[in-house]
Amino acid sequence: MTKNIKVNAAILIIGNEILSGRTQDTNTSTIATWLNSIGVKVSEVRVVPDDEEIIVETLNILRKKNNYVFTTGGIGPTHDDITAQSVAKTFGLKYEIHKEAFKILEAYYQPGEFNEGRQKMTWMPENAKLILNPTSGAPGFNVENIFCLPGVPSILKSMLGGLKNKIVGGKPILSHTISLRTVESEIANSLSQVQDKNKDVEIGSYPFFHSGKLGVSIVLRSENQTKIDTCNSQILEFVNAKKIEVVDR
Amino acid sequence: MTKNIKVNAAILIIGNEILSGRTQDTNTSTIATWLNSIGVKVSEVRVVPDDEEIIVETLNILRKKNNYVFTTGGIGPTHDDITAQSVAKTFGLKYEIHKEAFKILEAYYQPGEFNEGRQKMTWMPENAKLILNPTSGAPGFNVENIFCLPGVPSILKSMLGGLKNKIVGGKPILSHTISLRTVESEIANSLSQVQDKNKDVEIGSYPFFHSGKLGVSIVLRSENQTKIDTCNSQILEFVNAKKIEVVDR
Repeated sequence: MTKNIKVNAAILIIGNEILSGRTQDTNTSTIATWLNSIGVKVSEVRVVPDDEEIIVETLNILRKKNNYVFTTGGIGPTHDDITAQSVAKTFGLKYEIHKEAFKILEAYYQPGEFNEGRQKMTWMPENAKLILNPTSGAPGFNVENIFCLPGVPSILKSMLGGLKNKIVGGKPILSHTISLRTVESEIANSLSQVQDKNKDVEIGSYPFFHSGKLGVSIVLRSENQTKIDTCNSQILEFVNAKKIEVVDR
Repeated sequence: MTKNIKVNAAILIIGNEILSGRTQDTNTSTIATWLNSIGVKVSEVRVVPDDEEIIVETLNILRKKNNYVFTTGGIGPTHDDITAQSVAKTFGLKYEIHKEAFKILEAYYQPGEFNEGRQKMTWMPENAKLILNPTSGAPGFNVENIFCLPGVPSILKSMLGGLKNKIVGGKPILSHTISLRTVESEIANSLSQVQDKNKDVEIGSYPFFHSGKLGVSIVLRSENQTKIDTCNSQILEFVNAKKIEVVDR
């Protein structure tokens, strides 16, 4: 299905806490859903530890293969927050106090509370563009096609709106879901035939368990609504012929 | 902290539904937590689409860099389930009906219900070793250091127990968490000093919001309990000096 990809992005989740299993990442789904809505397809996601060498190496791979790269995590005040210095190293840029970020945080905190730990959050690659943070002051930043966001999900969510004008997507990726009271093996062959006839629509099949009942959700994805509709009709045709119940998920 | 790594693993999440944001991956956390308990550290996680070329390329990178690779997803009966054929291609092996898997599924289903879709789940790389599935019959499989598990979280969980004898880990990775009623910037410098004095302990700092209150969890990870204890004492020392409250998370 790769021929439909116009604008793509990678997500890089930075953090030992995800790799250890302690923390469940939810930012991938948040960012991916938002990117889809503005016509950007996520091509891959990687999770790496808080290790500068690995972060730099991975960013250098991802930024060349993708129109955009979004990182999450590692921009707080503690010693394990090393995203900004890693991005500086990725581009061979100075790692220094960002004057605008400094002003923002100086104004955000009460007099006397803008301590060294908080000031660390104003260290960024030189000339980084800020991504404003309406929730907790400390901005994210952007260098070339890399956009660095925090790891805390609620703060990350609040910052995506401010990115809208900085990301130029393609056509929004449309999707349609058909949920059926069946199991995958009952529809596998028919679905495969529909996929063969509709190469431009990405057809996914996902079993679900809901209210104690088994079912399958078929998800159709394409930039073209007419193609989704055609595909949908062909699926409903075999669904009706097999007398399979269509249900709400 | 890489010098402590004795046995490492990568997790490869296969599935368009994760990249589109539709489905929230929870398998990473499940597998990583289990691996930690048997002394295997997760070095990286990747999420890739249902695309054979990309899966093969990624598996070839990950299997050489890691002692073990765990894949999730893509082993069901539908056209978008292409993990088994991709693993066969990765090793240049035939993709064929696995006799033992065929017998298992033939016995699992009622007479006449073992249809073509279900038979697809018995196609595997030649000589693959089975990973038994106590939940829904269809086995996962293992070729060399690659272990292929399903995407449905409840089924995946039920299969991990059967892997225990196949994975040889190092020393279990121990962890200790100290949760504090403070913010990261208040402790960043002191914590950084403790990290400098205890290079063999991985110290992570994670802000949390719980019952409407802010806090920070400090997570200490090492294979050596004595080193964790030393680190813990040094942290409690500055915590007490700063009159910061220790709380349950």
